[in-house]
Amino acid sequence: MARVLIVHGPNLDLLGRREPELYGKMTLDQVNEELVRAGKSLGVEVLTYQSNHEGDLIDFIHAEGADCLGLIINAGALSHYSYALRDAIAATGVRAIEVHITNVYAREEFRRHSVIAPVCVGQISGLGARGYLAALSWLAEPGE
Amino acid sequence: MARVLIVHGPNLDLLGRREPELYGKMTLDQVNEELVRAGKSLGVEVLTYQSNHEGDLIDFIHAEGADCLGLIINAGALSHYSYALRDAIAATGVRAIEVHITNVYAREEFRRHSVIAPVCVGQISGLGARGYLAALSWLAEPGE
Amino acid sequence: MARVLIVHGPNLDLLGRREPELYGKMTLDQVNEELVRAGKSLGVEVLTYQSNHEGDLIDFIHAEGADCLGLIINAGALSHYSYALRDAIAATGVRAIEVHITNVYAREEFRRHSVIAPVCVGQISGLGARGYLAALSWLAEPGE
Amino acid sequence: MARVLIVHGPNLDLLGRREPELYGKMTLDQVNEELVRAGKSLGVEVLTYQSNHEGDLIDFIHAEGADCLGLIINAGALSHYSYALRDAIAATGVRAIEVHITNVYAREEFRRHSVIAPVCVGQISGLGARGYLAALSWLAEPGE
Amino acid sequence: MARVLIVHGPNLDLLGRREPELYGKMTLDQVNEELVRAGKSLGVEVLTYQSNHEGDLIDFIHAEGADCLGLIINAGALSHYSYALRDAIAATGVRAIEVHITNVYAREEFRRHSVIAPVCVGQISGLGARGYLAALSWLAEPGE
Amino acid sequence: MARVLIVHGPNLDLLGRREPELYGKMTLDQVNEELVRAGKSLGVEVLTYQSNHEGDLIDFIHAEGADCLGLIINAGALSHYSYALRDAIAATGVRAIEVHITNVYAREEFRRHSVIAPVCVGQISGLGARGYLAALSWLAEPGE
Amino acid sequence: MARVLIVHGPNLDLLGRREPELYGKMTLDQVNEELVRAGKSLGVEVLTYQSNHEGDLIDFIHAEGADCLGLIINAGALSHYSYALRDAIAATGVRAIEVHITNVYAREEFRRHSVIAPVCVGQISGLGARGYLAALSWLAEPGE
Amino acid sequence: MARVLIVHGPNLDLLGRREPELYGKMTLDQVNEELVRAGKSLGVEVLTYQSNHEGDLIDFIHAEGADCLGLIINAGALSHYSYALRDAIAATGVRAIEVHITNVYAREEFRRHSVIAPVCVGQISGLGARGYLAALSWLAEPGE
Amino acid sequence: MARVLIVHGPNLDLLGRREPELYGKMTLDQVNEELVRAGKSLGVEVLTYQSNHEGDLIDFIHAEGADCLGLIINAGALSHYSYALRDAIAATGVRAIEVHITNVYAREEFRRHSVIAPVCVGQISGLGARGYLAALSWLAEPGE
Amino acid sequence: MARVLIVHGPNLDLLGRREPELYGKMTLDQVNEELVRAGKSLGVEVLTYQSNHEGDLIDFIHAEGADCLGLIINAGALSHYSYALRDAIAATGVRAIEVHITNVYAREEFRRHSVIAPVCVGQISGLGARGYLAALSWLAEPGE
Amino acid sequence: MARVLIVHGPNLDLLGRREPELYGKMTLDQVNEELVRAGKSLGVEVLTYQSNHEGDLIDFIHAEGADCLGLIINAGALSHYSYALRDAIAATGVRAIEVHITNVYAREEFRRHSVIAPVCVGQISGLGARGYLAALSWLAEPGE
Amino acid sequence: MARVLIVHGPNLDLLGRREPELYGKMTLDQVNEELVRAGKSLGVEVLTYQSNHEGDLIDFIHAEGADCLGLIINAGALSHYSYALRDAIAATGVRAIEVHITNVYAREEFRRHSVIAPVCVGQISGLGARGYLAALSWLAEPGE
Repeated sequence: MARVLIVHGPNLDLLGRREPELYGKMTLDQVNEELVRAGKSLGVEVLTYQSNHEGDLIDFIHAEGADCLGLIINAGALSHYSYALRDAIAATGVRAIEVHITNVYAREEFRRHSVIAPVCVGQISGLGARGYLAALSWLAEPGE
Repeated sequence: MARVLIVHGPNLDLLGRREPELYGKMTLDQVNEELVRAGKSLGVEVLTYQSNHEGDLIDFIHAEGADCLGLIINAGALSHYSYALRDAIAATGVRAIEVHITNVYAREEFRRHSVIAPVCVGQISGLGARGYLAALSWLAEPGE
Repeated sequence: MARVLIVHGPNLDLLGRREPELYGKMTLDQVNEELVRAGKSLGVEVLTYQSNHEGDLIDFIHAEGADCLGLIINAGALSHYSYALRDAIAATGVRAIEVHITNVYAREEFRRHSVIAPVCVGQISGLGARGYLAALSWLAEPGE
Repeated sequence: MARVLIVHGPNLDLLGRREPELYGKMTLDQVNEELVRAGKSLGVEVLTYQSNHEGDLIDFIHAEGADCLGLIINAGALSHYSYALRDAIAATGVRAIEVHITNVYAREEFRRHSVIAPVCVGQISGLGARGYLAALSWLAEPGE
Repeated sequence: MARVLIVHGPNLDLLGRREPELYGKMTLDQVNEELVRAGKSLGVEVLTYQSNHEGDLIDFIHAEGADCLGLIINAGALSHYSYALRDAIAATGVRAIEVHITNVYAREEFRRHSVIAPVCVGQISGLGARGYLAALSWLAEPGE
Repeated sequence: MARVLIVHGPNLDLLGRREPELYGKMTLDQVNEELVRAGKSLGVEVLTYQSNHEGDLIDFIHAEGADCLGLIINAGALSHYSYALRDAIAATGVRAIEVHITNVYAREEFRRHSVIAPVCVGQISGLGARGYLAALSWLAEPGE
Repeated sequence: MARVLIVHGPNLDLLGRREPELYGKMTLDQVNEELVRAGKSLGVEVLTYQSNHEGDLIDFIHAEGADCLGLIINAGALSHYSYALRDAIAATGVRAIEVHITNVYAREEFRRHSVIAPVCVGQISGLGARGYLAALSWLAEPGE
Repeated sequence: MARVLIVHGPNLDLLGRREPELYGKMTLDQVNEELVRAGKSLGVEVLTYQSNHEGDLIDFIHAEGADCLGLIINAGALSHYSYALRDAIAATGVRAIEVHITNVYAREEFRRHSVIAPVCVGQISGLGARGYLAALSWLAEPGE
Repeated sequence: MARVLIVHGPNLDLLGRREPELYGKMTLDQVNEELVRAGKSLGVEVLTYQSNHEGDLIDFIHAEGADCLGLIINAGALSHYSYALRDAIAATGVRAIEVHITNVYAREEFRRHSVIAPVCVGQISGLGARGYLAALSWLAEPGE
Repeated sequence: MARVLIVHGPNLDLLGRREPELYGKMTLDQVNEELVRAGKSLGVEVLTYQSNHEGDLIDFIHAEGADCLGLIINAGALSHYSYALRDAIAATGVRAIEVHITNVYAREEFRRHSVIAPVCVGQISGLGARGYLAALSWLAEPGE
Repeated sequence: MARVLIVHGPNLDLLGRREPELYGKMTLDQVNEELVRAGKSLGVEVLTYQSNHEGDLIDFIHAEGADCLGLIINAGALSHYSYALRDAIAATGVRAIEVHITNVYAREEFRRHSVIAPVCVGQISGLGARGYLAALSWLAEPGE
Repeated sequence: MARVLIVHGPNLDLLGRREPELYGKMTLDQVNEELVRAGKSLGVEVLTYQSNHEGDLIDFIHAEGADCLGLIINAGALSHYSYALRDAIAATGVRAIEVHITNVYAREEFRRHSVIAPVCVGQISGLGARGYLAALSWLAEPGE
């Protein structure tokens, strides 16, 4: 069964507990469970991972990135400066979609620039936790 | 029946006929038909519009933007400089999602900056014509 | 009777109906009527025009700009990028005053820069719809 | 009787005597007299002040700014760097209008940026000494 | 007979009537007539078009750009910001030459940057109306 | 007993042993001991933590940040680029004071910009190890 | 008895009376009295000075800066552009600490840059009027 | 007989031998011969010169620039930084046309900026070696 | 007898007493005396003035600038931001030479930019107090 | 026996397996073995280390940096933003050489800037895995 | 007898013949003769040199720079980009004064920046050919 | 026998005689002799060249660049602006290594940017004269 990776970066472990007006009320566990469930109905295995450590995220992508159908990544604030994470995605050649829960283009200036976006297939921002689902369904379904 | 607007900006009338390696093989008519069909199954009316004229796009948003469920807009290259289009979206208060067929973050530098994004709810880029479908489904379904 | 042109750019047709806390409660028709009335008492004919199309605004200035006493222009968001509109004013040599209803210097960064201002006689911003009246009275009265 | 302050910054004491092709032929005294006279007919007391000292201007605004109807300020070149003057206006909460005799947007680059504008209600530039009159009439008359 | 398109952007309809010290004394009609005549002697049909509307220019390029020998475009001030026009040229794949009547590199700073140049074959500036003729002859003659 | 967290970032474990002319002669242990002692006399528990790992610092703030009186953080060089650390502070809502041992404004250009400062209550720099004490006393004492 | 100078720049005379949500409720006199009192218990004489005039502040530093234990300066908005004040501190060689009542790093962009900081020993911002006390105690106590 | 100078800068001696896909297959000698021949039929003497030395190019322009009909210059990479060459053209007052064989606006960023263009009459780029011919014919023929 | 003004800005009253390795050992009085003496032998009256107040310097230039042979100004750090001082020089039309004792181009970046230089005749920097003498002799002697 | 440290940053564990056209075909183990072997013949012990964690790299440098002959570091993408790594090198005072396998000056813009280079002795880029050998031999041999 | 070098860069051979309104009417020979004469009366030998070749200027400074009293250099436009010339001055350690005939701070933006100034003792600009004399007299006379 | 070119740019003729603390004590002749000797033992002929003239360096590369094994170039300060030299390397297609004796990344800002690096194979900086040897050995030995 094809596998899709879901990678959550720094501070996403706090999802649902902090700043819910920005990030929504669902916890990370709830989001992940919903993604696993959606994966099942789409016929793909969903493997989720969260870490506040840039190095852990890179290690995870190295270990799992090569043999999967695709990668959905919300690198949190690392999106704005972690060229190392960018290189990890590029080096493994994994088909990645960047997801942001909030509309990063309507917040602080520094959030407008993602160093990861250029090595991804696409980006979804501002659609809340449902952005992950849209990305998952895109990766799982053989498309145009 | 609630209505969702689909607005296509300059050069999108050429969809499917030009640079298919970038923009895919579906024509704009085919994309629109698929969206109308998808809308039906989601229980929303889909109204599509394309123009190469900034003013036409603004007129259309003024006329239709106030009473709809939401707006999906691919403003083409206008995304990068049309503050007038941005103001039209902000002024009507319509819930808008910006869609780009290609990953604008992996192309020329000027395509990385959207002046429309800050007044939208969110943005989807790089997912091809299926990005419109993801946006439509997000607007149509009562979410989180 | 000398004529003064009043040119309103994109989104000003929504005046009074949208974001009244920013732009006031008077509609564009009410503003225009007041300007025509004021023109009469100042002894000048007032001709008003609004369009959301950059090209229409240029066409209008070409057609009417040469033989009038002056031009009052609120180009809306086009103020910030329409070098074509700037050239239209410069080419016709019309004496123009730029008017902004809100204080553009207290809003988003991009609103601080007008590409039209350098080819105008002056600029009035932040005085609401009454800014047009001040401009009209300045153009109509033989001054210092 | 409500009072309107007119504050002139550095070099405006030379008005009418220097560079008349730029700044007009009226002296500062003549401008002030006209403003006092206009104030009378509008039913407001006009108090004028000029200094080449940033500190004096701040002292004056502290002393008089709190209890007046409004402030008309032409800070001269201080407009472009005196954040202290800006803070004085913001701190007293006075309703201020910035006036420039010339069109600062058609001169040297540094004149395009006013650090005072963001804490004012509005700005008038390029209308010569009559710009003060337009500002005075705006402050004096209960408006829209 | 092979066809060459000549596209004139905003304000070029004023050619010969305004600012002749900058743009020369020939009217646009005279320039176009000369180009048609020159085309005949070169064995190509010359089709000319002028509009002040960005959208019209794009529509025209879409309609005529695919089947012609080449396109000569003076986009006027749109050259400096119309990424939509740029995309129209790139999308149709037409062989285009950008022409400016004046030397844009010796005027205001903003005129030094053309967003259209990167998708053209070449650029001619400063040679007056004769620049169009040079471009026409280059397109018409099988060259090096 | 209320608790104050002291968080030391990368390279601060070398305190006292390296570049003492810049950072002073006290070791990190000595600084921490002094802070614990001072905390006692101020009636607060002081919990200190050091790591060279961005992720560890974030984990620590997540674990301890919610229930403390405040956080004193010297993020070392991470101050200049770790938006992830910034988000950790913002997400937990902890009252934080940024401390730098040296005057970062008198060193290399990159040290002048802290991405953490905007989400802190305040900042102390250049006062050596005593800067921590000042921050501790400020947090511990009910102030103005 | 060693002396510490406290220098307050433009608009700080309004302390406690204006924008108390930003600057606190204590007046400048109250702050100064508290500093004099604290100085006494620390064994130092405290001399306070306020002016809205850059020149006055420089004169004061020239007159008193050479023979004192140190200088605590809140130059207000002058911090952001008064290179003359910076040179006065550097020229007298006085040991200076810059204090800001608010967290200047969480406000307007221009407040992030102090031209005075590079010639000071350190900087305290965001700790309210108590920031002065921390600076005073640092200067008065023989430290590490 | 009137004379036209053709000046080729650094690396143009390699024309035809290197990177022919960029610069074409004609050698510099062939280009020059064609220009001499074309000059004859236009009734002007053509004097060609090439050097890889900035100083030589300046010496040549000083020696020959004053008494000629015009100058055609392809300064190669010197175009992008040789203000000395620019001053030579400006100082002699020669009527100059800048020619680039390739479209410099479609290559590396640094090639977009010519320091020579502002002191020339015009510029031709991207038309290959035929760009020289167009410039020659423009200079030789009494024009509009 | 023609008069030359010597204007010294902020911190120059400390000349000779502070940072002599940078500014030399002569006091301002000694420098002024030497200038008066040199003026006598050149047949011009020398009037010297120093203030730490921008406003004083402007007042002095207004009072004395119109009727003198020329002005020698070392505005100290005001050189780098006082557009008001610049306007004072421009407004009086006085022939001014800017003098800096040190080589401002070999110090901090901010010292490289003088806002006064563009309205002066020339500038001398780095020649110590003798720079004033060179300027004086240039103004006093009828030159080339 | 003197020791040389070889430190490999993020993604270098993938060496030889990914993007071999960029990074060559040797695996990291092979590169390290060759370095150990070369060290032996040069009479130095070679200790190699790789981690994808910035913190691990810093810990390693702290632990081993003080007592070695020198450090060869390829920090991967961390080179472009890890000021913490830079501080680790500077703090331990180790003699470091930065190595990049590819020519970072011929790739993406962000790769041109190394924040580590200023605290190293030198830098070698573009020489493939042999760049490490050149650095090793330089450190091992008593040189000029 | 001590020697002073006078080095003139590109285009200064045209002095007196071109743009006399900018550069004066004296030819370079006349300027040099006057400098030789002035040198004699100051007791120094004056050696003058002009070249349009950067390399020649460097060669000359290498050959003569080491054993002279000082160097007066007007590098013409090379001042703005010739870091090689800068290094020649720095490498020989010669005491140099930069001279510009015109006020470079009142002309095009690029003339405001000299890459040579930071390695010179001082700079004189805008005093015409007499600027050389002032520099010569400064170098020749034992000063303050 | 294969040949390697060693090209030294401006001011490198002074090697060993000037600023030895920066550039070392070996003269250029000594460096070249060592390179010739090393070349022999590596089985390659070494041809060295130095000039202070950009044009000479280009001429040399044109003459010798096409038929050699590789080119080692230390262009001195020309590295930072000579796009002409860059084009010479690119045009001849020679395999080039850039060498800098000092660590250019630890000196003035302008030395951080090499316009030559992007067309070279690699770069070595900061390793003193031994950097040439490392480059030579890399070019001479058939590598990975």
